[in-house]
Amino acid sequence: MGFLRGGLVLCILLLLCSFERSFGSGKTRHLKWDVEYMFWSPDCKESVVMGINGQFPGPTIRAKAGDTISVLLTNKLHTEGVVIHWHGIRQVGTPWADGTASISQCAINPGETFDYRFVVDKPGTYFYHGHFGMQRSAGLYGSLIVDVADGDQREPFHYDGEFNMLLSDWWHQSVHHQEVGLSSKPFRWIGEPQTVLINGRGQFNCSLAAHFSNTTSTNQCNLRGNEQCAPQILRVLPNKTYRLRIASTTALASLNLAVGGHKMVVVEADGNYVQPFQVEDIDIYSGESYSVLIRTNQEAFKNYWISIGVRGRRPQTPQALTLLNYAPTLASKIPPLPPSATPAWNDYGHSKSFSNKILALMGSPKPPKNYDRRIILLNTQNLIDGFIKWSINNISLHLPSTPYLGSIKYSLKTAFDNKSPPENFSSDYDIMKPPVNPNTTTGNGVYMLPLNTTVDVILQNANALAANVSEIHPWHLHGHDFWVLGYGEGKFTKEDEKKFNLKNPPLRNTAVIFPHGWTALRFVTDNPGVWAFHCHIEPHLHMGMGVVFAEGVQHVNGISNQALACGLTGNRFMKTTQN
Amino acid sequence: MGFLRGGLVLCILLLLCSFERSFGSGKTRHLKWDVEYMFWSPDCKESVVMGINGQFPGPTIRAKAGDTISVLLTNKLHTEGVVIHWHGIRQVGTPWADGTASISQCAINPGETFDYRFVVDKPGTYFYHGHFGMQRSAGLYGSLIVDVADGDQREPFHYDGEFNMLLSDWWHQSVHHQEVGLSSKPFRWIGEPQTVLINGRGQFNCSLAAHFSNTTSTNQCNLRGNEQCAPQILRVLPNKTYRLRIASTTALASLNLAVGGHKMVVVEADGNYVQPFQVEDIDIYSGESYSVLIRTNQEAFKNYWISIGVRGRRPQTPQALTLLNYAPTLASKIPPLPPSATPAWNDYGHSKSFSNKILALMGSPKPPKNYDRRIILLNTQNLIDGFIKWSINNISLHLPSTPYLGSIKYSLKTAFDNKSPPENFSSDYDIMKPPVNPNTTTGNGVYMLPLNTTVDVILQNANALAANVSEIHPWHLHGHDFWVLGYGEGKFTKEDEKKFNLKNPPLRNTAVIFPHGWTALRFVTDNPGVWAFHCHIEPHLHMGMGVVFAEGVQHVNGISNQALACGLTGNRFMKTTQN
Repeated sequence: MGFLRGGLVLCILLLLCSFERSFGSGKTRHLKWDVEYMFWSPDCKESVVMGINGQFPGPTIRAKAGDTISVLLTNKLHTEGVVIHWHGIRQVGTPWADGTASISQCAINPGETFDYRFVVDKPGTYFYHGHFGMQRSAGLYGSLIVDVADGDQREPFHYDGEFNMLLSDWWHQSVHHQEVGLSSKPFRWIGEPQTVLINGRGQFNCSLAAHFSNTTSTNQCNLRGNEQCAPQILRVLPNKTYRLRIASTTALASLNLAVGGHKMVVVEADGNYVQPFQVEDIDIYSGESYSVLIRTNQEAFKNYWISIGVRGRRPQTPQALTLLNYAPTLASKIPPLPPSATPAWNDYGHSKSFSNKILALMGSPKPPKNYDRRIILLNTQNLIDGFIKWSINNISLHLPSTPYLGSIKYSLKTAFDNKSPPENFSSDYDIMKPPVNPNTTTGNGVYMLPLNTTVDVILQNANALAANVSEIHPWHLHGHDFWVLGYGEGKFTKEDEKKFNLKNPPLRNTAVIFPHGWTALRFVTDNPGVWAFHCHIEPHLHMGMGVVFAEGVQHVNGISNQALACGLTGNRFMKTTQN
Repeated sequence: MGFLRGGLVLCILLLLCSFERSFGSGKTRHLKWDVEYMFWSPDCKESVVMGINGQFPGPTIRAKAGDTISVLLTNKLHTEGVVIHWHGIRQVGTPWADGTASISQCAINPGETFDYRFVVDKPGTYFYHGHFGMQRSAGLYGSLIVDVADGDQREPFHYDGEFNMLLSDWWHQSVHHQEVGLSSKPFRWIGEPQTVLINGRGQFNCSLAAHFSNTTSTNQCNLRGNEQCAPQILRVLPNKTYRLRIASTTALASLNLAVGGHKMVVVEADGNYVQPFQVEDIDIYSGESYSVLIRTNQEAFKNYWISIGVRGRRPQTPQALTLLNYAPTLASKIPPLPPSATPAWNDYGHSKSFSNKILALMGSPKPPKNYDRRIILLNTQNLIDGFIKWSINNISLHLPSTPYLGSIKYSLKTAFDNKSPPENFSSDYDIMKPPVNPNTTTGNGVYMLPLNTTVDVILQNANALAANVSEIHPWHLHGHDFWVLGYGEGKFTKEDEKKFNLKNPPLRNTAVIFPHGWTALRFVTDNPGVWAFHCHIEPHLHMGMGVVFAEGVQHVNGISNQALACGLTGNRFMKTTQN
């Protein structure tokens, strides 16, 4: 016991030392951002969007591994709080900068400024987005690209140039309106997006490729290129290699991207290198990022469509399009071939085939051989007093008003449910059928995880409220990458464990569960903090589809005062000192 | 000096004692309210409104003078803070319950509950409403009626029955959208309201009195009476006296109300009795309340229109209508005469004549004969970097993120501008012309007022940015009633002082300034706290049209912790205690 405890302390000390070192190893990049609503036309139709410094999407952050990012974020909204989550950044040593309202910090109130200061320790393709209510859906997002540090080993692939493609989906109904519908009885679903956006640009009233369409209902776009909704064209030279950094911050849509006439080699997923593999198209779920390499080895006097379609749900949204434009061909030259067709939305064989191709690059960190704890999370759609919710092991997450990081650190036991949530579900639950008893409960209990244990999470999908319906859910973990040990069909059994890939499972921060299937993940609790783990579909999280992990919070020191200035942590210290 | 200071302390002690006494003299009325957005059809067209406990308008509070109201208000909004201001309640001894974000308290965060606990010490017709951003415009309001205490002297007039009419105006564009337009360059004005509502009910797509209209464009309403937009009909018996309690919480509209065929006797204004006077119609500006008596002495086999039209701005909104229905006449019987025409919107003679008729009931408290301090507030429309603002003595109010009550009490000097705002404006300013230099500055300085002084405020209207335009502004003071000493034309001069009514000026909490004119007010700083004083037109306040008075904050004790749990007051106590 004493040895174990000593080992633990040593481990934490090492962790803190490595953090201290990295906190000073690179440049500090100082940014000043104002978040505010503004009129904008993401898809050629004017809407109100949540922008940063007058831009939508927000500014792209570009840094080198080891750099410290300091974003002084001022909330210029009138009545709403705001936070920003740095998706894929593990926040080692800075859990209060994770930007999750009710979890890592108090929402930044109107007029207040919060200093997000954290290290980006690993090269890769990341992004950032709002994490309060459904503010991500309102347009609060942008790209975060981390290059290798100066002097560090180069990336394990070569490219001559790169493009950044942050994908999102867009609704014409305001997020406030959407939220009311989701919380109403009768329930009102948000529906499919009106438009898919590439770097915040899409076309709702017109099509870039109308003349390939058989219908006359779609007008050819007549854009000059300087409109807010005009596509950003990828201008390339022949016979070069380009890296496309593709990330999806969609509220709902599972996407598929293809580059007409060009194969793609996948080299990175969620900021981790993967064993390169070649595909015709890639699936990308909300919360994921990929880098793919394309070789511009096609006829240079033509242009080629880049097309992005919706999969996993019956699509009602046109493909998003932009052009791969070979120099010196004019960008105005329409490609001779129509955009690639998106694979059938419900061809899950295609989807699974793609997911199973993603394996860690040789030499990547391997998972521990055994787990210390297994948490099985059943994903179900349920009812509370007739309101539709999503639940995990029959608990629909309803976040507390005092953020966990402060309430756990200062043992404010009234701040949330102290009872630990269940780690499994009833063995007789039939995941192929609608729930026999659809009623669920809300809760905000926390899975308390001791430091430096290996945790397996089995995400178990199930049937929704309607018969023969099971949806795709991309689950995202904060504070960690996890190894994806495998995907399977039906209900997970002990036998399935034998099929786990312990040899070269990919490290990810987001993994999908397929209809009526399971996904197995493993991670090590080596990062003191409180971390959300949730379906990255915005309305699903809003409807309770998430859980909270706390690990070693007693070892977290130096929580920013601003992160605590609300609720019970905002009150607590006044009681004794106020006169 | 010593005597004066002693007197001051004595006075405060008396104040506190009287407060303590009143805090226990009546019943405590416990209410539990949830604020949330909901779908609602205030004018027969579905919108998202901010409701309380599933109701719009919020529940009517009915209490007796001396009662304590306790509202446990839970914020069920997803990302917005919320507060509620109890309009007309002076909050003697409870300034932290005044419900003004950034002034008296921290906004209540999503999921949090705030205990509004205060005494209603004076009978009258009041209301409550949101006071954060433009949440009042979103529908967050309701009535607050205080009856005389048991055993107390009866009201100085008799009536057989009463009706409550809370008036508001309604837009189809969401408040979030409106706010963006007001803060945009180019500026986008909210326009005139689509509908005027009586107790939250109006008709946009149809008219109750279409058959009186000459146009065929208006459809006769076909309402069954159970719709959310169906009018509440005033059912009366013949030959009785009824009290109509009329309050206006409009975002913009100045209204005029008439009861066809019936004269009205005005008996109360803003919770103060007035010398009764008879009129054909009454003007009511946002923030005001009146009680009028009507005698049901007309032909009992007919019904009569109650009509409310817009004045003071070129109206584009149909009259709001409901029926005065004599028993046993059927409510479905259409009155034989059309609704009364609203007096011309720009007949300011009519408006001033009405305002000048309002005088205190004999025996009402009289103002001190002399003032200790005079603050002259010039109201101008200005520009900041091309953004349109309203300014007072060339400062456009931009509220700080830490509420004043806490920051002044705890001397947090960085929380707001420490420089006192100007108490006058340049003597050569031409109020009849657009500003020569329209540029203004934002600020959040405070007028610091010593306790127990008599303060005169001269509200000086001026020309707006466009030539020959000067608007009506109803100014509302928190924490106090003031005496309205007079209204005048043009620029206020020392000579005008001679015309002040010191004999029977009415006590009000809201007073209007007329185009290119001035209004003189007097009040005594007998209520420790921080009090907003502002134009009650919601978009005008949003554009900076207000000032802040602080009086005797060092004597305020017992500020609710919850009121301080944000910003610098939320941080301050942690710095020393956090480990």
